[in-house]
Amino acid sequence: MRADGREPKQLRPIHIETDYLKHPEGSVLITVGDTKVICTASIDERVPPFMRGQGKGWITAEYSMLPRATEQRNIRESAKGKISGRTMEIQRLIGRALRAVVDLDALGERTVWLDCDVIQADGGTRTASITGAFIAMAQAMDKLYSSKKLTHYPINDFLAATSVGILKNKQAVVDLNYIEDSSAEVDMNVVMTGSGEFVELQGTGEEATFSYTQLQEMLSAAQEGISELFELQKAALGEKITEHIHSKREKLGGRA
Amino acid sequence: MRADGREPKQLRPIHIETDYLKHPEGSVLITVGDTKVICTASIDERVPPFMRGQGKGWITAEYSMLPRATEQRNIRESAKGKISGRTMEIQRLIGRALRAVVDLDALGERTVWLDCDVIQADGGTRTASITGAFIAMAQAMDKLYSSKKLTHYPINDFLAATSVGILKNKQAVVDLNYIEDSSAEVDMNVVMTGSGEFVELQGTGEEATFSYTQLQEMLSAAQEGISELFELQKAALGEKITEHIHSKREKLGGRA
Amino acid sequence: MRADGREPKQLRPIHIETDYLKHPEGSVLITVGDTKVICTASIDERVPPFMRGQGKGWITAEYSMLPRATEQRNIRESAKGKISGRTMEIQRLIGRALRAVVDLDALGERTVWLDCDVIQADGGTRTASITGAFIAMAQAMDKLYSSKKLTHYPINDFLAATSVGILKNKQAVVDLNYIEDSSAEVDMNVVMTGSGEFVELQGTGEEATFSYTQLQEMLSAAQEGISELFELQKAALGEKITEHIHSKREKLGGRA
Amino acid sequence: MRADGREPKQLRPIHIETDYLKHPEGSVLITVGDTKVICTASIDERVPPFMRGQGKGWITAEYSMLPRATEQRNIRESAKGKISGRTMEIQRLIGRALRAVVDLDALGERTVWLDCDVIQADGGTRTASITGAFIAMAQAMDKLYSSKKLTHYPINDFLAATSVGILKNKQAVVDLNYIEDSSAEVDMNVVMTGSGEFVELQGTGEEATFSYTQLQEMLSAAQEGISELFELQKAALGEKITEHIHSKREKLGGRA
Amino acid sequence: MRADGREPKQLRPIHIETDYLKHPEGSVLITVGDTKVICTASIDERVPPFMRGQGKGWITAEYSMLPRATEQRNIRESAKGKISGRTMEIQRLIGRALRAVVDLDALGERTVWLDCDVIQADGGTRTASITGAFIAMAQAMDKLYSSKKLTHYPINDFLAATSVGILKNKQAVVDLNYIEDSSAEVDMNVVMTGSGEFVELQGTGEEATFSYTQLQEMLSAAQEGISELFELQKAALGEKITEHIHSKREKLGGRA
Amino acid sequence: MRADGREPKQLRPIHIETDYLKHPEGSVLITVGDTKVICTASIDERVPPFMRGQGKGWITAEYSMLPRATEQRNIRESAKGKISGRTMEIQRLIGRALRAVVDLDALGERTVWLDCDVIQADGGTRTASITGAFIAMAQAMDKLYSSKKLTHYPINDFLAATSVGILKNKQAVVDLNYIEDSSAEVDMNVVMTGSGEFVELQGTGEEATFSYTQLQEMLSAAQEGISELFELQKAALGEKITEHIHSKREKLGGRA
Repeated sequence: MRADGREPKQLRPIHIETDYLKHPEGSVLITVGDTKVICTASIDERVPPFMRGQGKGWITAEYSMLPRATEQRNIRESAKGKISGRTMEIQRLIGRALRAVVDLDALGERTVWLDCDVIQADGGTRTASITGAFIAMAQAMDKLYSSKKLTHYPINDFLAATSVGILKNKQAVVDLNYIEDSSAEVDMNVVMTGSGEFVELQGTGEEATFSYTQLQEMLSAAQEGISELFELQKAALGEKITEHIHSKREKLGGRA
Repeated sequence: MRADGREPKQLRPIHIETDYLKHPEGSVLITVGDTKVICTASIDERVPPFMRGQGKGWITAEYSMLPRATEQRNIRESAKGKISGRTMEIQRLIGRALRAVVDLDALGERTVWLDCDVIQADGGTRTASITGAFIAMAQAMDKLYSSKKLTHYPINDFLAATSVGILKNKQAVVDLNYIEDSSAEVDMNVVMTGSGEFVELQGTGEEATFSYTQLQEMLSAAQEGISELFELQKAALGEKITEHIHSKREKLGGRA
Repeated sequence: MRADGREPKQLRPIHIETDYLKHPEGSVLITVGDTKVICTASIDERVPPFMRGQGKGWITAEYSMLPRATEQRNIRESAKGKISGRTMEIQRLIGRALRAVVDLDALGERTVWLDCDVIQADGGTRTASITGAFIAMAQAMDKLYSSKKLTHYPINDFLAATSVGILKNKQAVVDLNYIEDSSAEVDMNVVMTGSGEFVELQGTGEEATFSYTQLQEMLSAAQEGISELFELQKAALGEKITEHIHSKREKLGGRA
Repeated sequence: MRADGREPKQLRPIHIETDYLKHPEGSVLITVGDTKVICTASIDERVPPFMRGQGKGWITAEYSMLPRATEQRNIRESAKGKISGRTMEIQRLIGRALRAVVDLDALGERTVWLDCDVIQADGGTRTASITGAFIAMAQAMDKLYSSKKLTHYPINDFLAATSVGILKNKQAVVDLNYIEDSSAEVDMNVVMTGSGEFVELQGTGEEATFSYTQLQEMLSAAQEGISELFELQKAALGEKITEHIHSKREKLGGRA
Repeated sequence: MRADGREPKQLRPIHIETDYLKHPEGSVLITVGDTKVICTASIDERVPPFMRGQGKGWITAEYSMLPRATEQRNIRESAKGKISGRTMEIQRLIGRALRAVVDLDALGERTVWLDCDVIQADGGTRTASITGAFIAMAQAMDKLYSSKKLTHYPINDFLAATSVGILKNKQAVVDLNYIEDSSAEVDMNVVMTGSGEFVELQGTGEEATFSYTQLQEMLSAAQEGISELFELQKAALGEKITEHIHSKREKLGGRA
Repeated sequence: MRADGREPKQLRPIHIETDYLKHPEGSVLITVGDTKVICTASIDERVPPFMRGQGKGWITAEYSMLPRATEQRNIRESAKGKISGRTMEIQRLIGRALRAVVDLDALGERTVWLDCDVIQADGGTRTASITGAFIAMAQAMDKLYSSKKLTHYPINDFLAATSVGILKNKQAVVDLNYIEDSSAEVDMNVVMTGSGEFVELQGTGEEATFSYTQLQEMLSAAQEGISELFELQKAALGEKITEHIHSKREKLGGRA
């Protein structure tokens, strides 16, 4: 049993509150244990310069933490005047992950901005951001589709993420909280589609290494955890959007 | 009657949720109409270099908005690499206003960081930040006092703020929402103490001017509105902290 | 009597030297006691992007101090790579104040840049900047009008500013020098039009507060001081420009 | 067969020139196909502030490309005034990877700076940097050990890296050149130790996804390629250093 | 004859106003034709980190132009957030030139900051800055010496500078104004000591080249012009300081 | 005799390797003693904004050092977020020097970027950069001319540079290495054309001064050294390009 009483393959309690803010086209407050992230999706009717004239859309993500989301107060990146390497890595990951399930041609020359702002941090902020940002994005894109601005449905599949790791006691566990994460030997973030394919796999030995067998254990734990996340996403998005995504996936030959 | 049905001197509905986050020493989610601000207070056991060795504390504030707090998405100041003039003005105002009711000697060589993060904006974000930050600060300081780290109570009086203005129809109104604010001829922010003294007065004709009579009307509306805010602050902070502040104020010769 | 022998409502000696530099469309060296500011007005035949296509002009101000304008040498903001909050606040104030008396439609799609560079500082640099910048601006705009580039006179009224404050001895005084300013309990900057209307009012208790009665005393001192400044502005600008501004003000229904 | 005539599991020709520069404690020019990277190791007798007083060392890496290392000239990051997200990700990866095989306690309070400067780029610059930086680091650390500044050997094992991917034709290949890399569906970087353990695994579907089977194919190709790299590292470092690393690994219980 | 009626070897009218500002230890307004520069010298009782503990002093210079010193308004470097290459070159030149005539050992661990702020520009701003900064520096250092803080006189010799050039008509001229400077084929700045030695020589063909003969002509014109500048410096500094510098020079074996 | 056994007027061994990199239009590795610089020339089919519409080309240079090109590791300018004054001075010098021998009209609206990256530094990096950049530029421009993109040959003459100086023992020497350079009393960089004209002359007394006679000695040493550099440039560029440059020079009336 883990420090907080969970089984190795047990996720923390998860809560998803949709339409959390009034201005954005899509917005979610996702709570994973004590980790809380506000994810918003904003539609911009332009694409960045390097994409212009191709008739395709773009997905871009930004990630930030409130200064006191953590135990110790962090200096704001705006006050430092630059974005840290960690933040850059995370926002590149979120954007890349979401692009993997979006039909950028169907989106047309539009950018969807995904803003993930961590209000409270207790481990797993990047995977909670991906899981939450998918919902905000799906809501924003559904509005575009419902208002007939798109001719094809732009989302090819569900997408969610979790962390897995190897603790000091060599146990493979899922959804690490901050205490577990900071002492784990191996830390891996896994992003998967609703069809069970991998989108991203980022495993790191923290001044340690891991074997092929340990990798297999972690991937199996991740797969189980992520399949629960898909059920929560479907409940949050409702039947109509779930249907739309499933039909699009089937058309593309994926698993319904 | 105003566009949203309010009387000229009527505040919007206000809600204060204390202990909103688990890490900070004090934290509040303050809601004023559709404006929502997370205010946190963090204790730092050091003072900035220019204050060292004087045995006194310091209060400093930072203010930010989520990119999609507003109707149009704003570029993050961290992405731009610099803080706008507007943000600087607001955070200087918040810090200065709160310092006016703090006994910096009683605080000892400590800094209290007040972070005001606007989650949703609909006018009056700077005055909501001051009113909310006071509560977060009072909670954090009360913890210091209760744990015997301070020998004197560090808060001299209550402090709250509201906006007043002159609309295009020449009417003086209190607590302007975004629509009112963006078309008002005069916009004034007023910060007052529980004893009815002024701390800050910032009145600006927006490509317009105002007379002495109009100034008097605005100040009277501000005074009434702020006295309601004090009642809400007392309810949020509870009887014990309210008592502490009142006794400190009496000792200093203020109005109980 | 004040430390330098002045009466509470007495301004310091003021000197205005027009046409101080050869390149700018308008330029002034304004001396208020030991405070010296070079104010220049530059006409730019474009407006910033957010103003384009509206047929209106724009006024923008920049403020800076020579490193050794002060008792202690200050690091240049260019060397630090960023502008301080104080500088931003001041330049936003100067620009906003001057826009209040300009008919931006009459100006056409032009920007007037007002540069206020403090050569020597002894308190009141921001109010001296406003008073001096008005003169530089009036000269530059008069050249535009005289050369038939404008069909209507672009200045609606005179504009000047001074500081007032409450000293430690509770006395309300006008035009504080640096020594007075740094120990005053309350510091207020007042910007008014030639018709006696307020444009800006910025009062701040410096770790102190002020009552309604003290506010009234300060405003009365400010009003008196500013009326003397208008006489000096008129003398500096000469009869023709003074006449033009007075007629424009009368047309708008202001007090001649 | 691949575009350049290689078998799927065949690396490009690799050349390692040690002692490439006269100033650094270790330096290498590593050539992998047309990719050329200068890797240097510099010993700094201090650690960063967050590590002080722990008696442990630190490894940090920086990565850069000459502006014309690529087909199109890139703007220098020094001219832009900031480091791109891609660069940050790569230099964090290199540092983290090398720390996994270093005994930071044995190193003592010293920092080893690893600078990887890409002179010419044709895919795989980050994995060539890791493979080359290991050699430069081993040489620099050996000098420390030989001069009796360290009591224990500081390197626990060999470390090398390569890229693997899935091409458009679904084939799993190793060591992708730029042409292959830019059209591959999946791109994975694998860092392994001489004992066959994983240190980092970063797999990304580029607007695509990958299955568990494809993951297994890629890992097998990576393992084979990396084992060849270890032979080249041993040849470059020579028998004495190879022996030292092998004995340290055995002491730690690793595979000799 | 030149466009402004001067002979080839004739300087523009020069005016030097000492004690121009009240705060700095030394200050000068130097006017060379229509070029006006405020030069101040500030004593700082510390040296930069790289100089500490050597018992020697340091001289450093900063240079800037008011935005409207020129025909067209320039964007402030503080607003751009960085200092241009031109500014850096000039301030490095000024500092280096002045260090050549200062006895840094005699100065002790102090920094003298020389700030050269161009109020109005019409060519030759860097040479006017050097000539003026020497005077401000000499005054500030004389105060140190007079107040017995120094045991040896810190200035070894006089120092002044002028520009020379080859015009389109192949004529060698001295002290070019802006019009001459912007069309000259060759532009050379010459800094010399009172003993007739060179300190700096910076000659540049502007998309042109120059022969050895032309170089000799320019140097001869520079020498003549600079000897006039020394007379003006001596008049401005007065007999006592002039005497001090001459005796120090004689002690060092220079020409009296 | 000098510390490394050279005669006063003897250059260090020089090696020029052309076509050093595969991507740039021109590239050279130039070795002068232990100083090694990679110089590349990149053709950009646009000019900077201030040159547009004039039908002329532009030459611009950038200079950088690898962090461990020097004895002590330097912090990267990209990490500092700004370019040092020294770097700016050098890259402005390189660009200006090369423009002096280019027929910008013949080049058409194109920019040639010259990147000089110092791999190893032992004095004279800026003059080695100029000498090497000329070769890279000549190769790139010859490709433009050979492919009939230009109607006139764009290079007017050869261009090379060396350093000269006065050592502590008052000896005038050429091509100073780092040890000599850091203790020299005078340091001068000389850039000359193949016809024996000067392009740049930058002489600096390092806390010292120099006489007219010393200047003549240095110039004579520079002239001799540079004439050797021209022979090496011709050998590196080959007969055809040498012929082209000579004919262009003759047409312009230069010395063949």
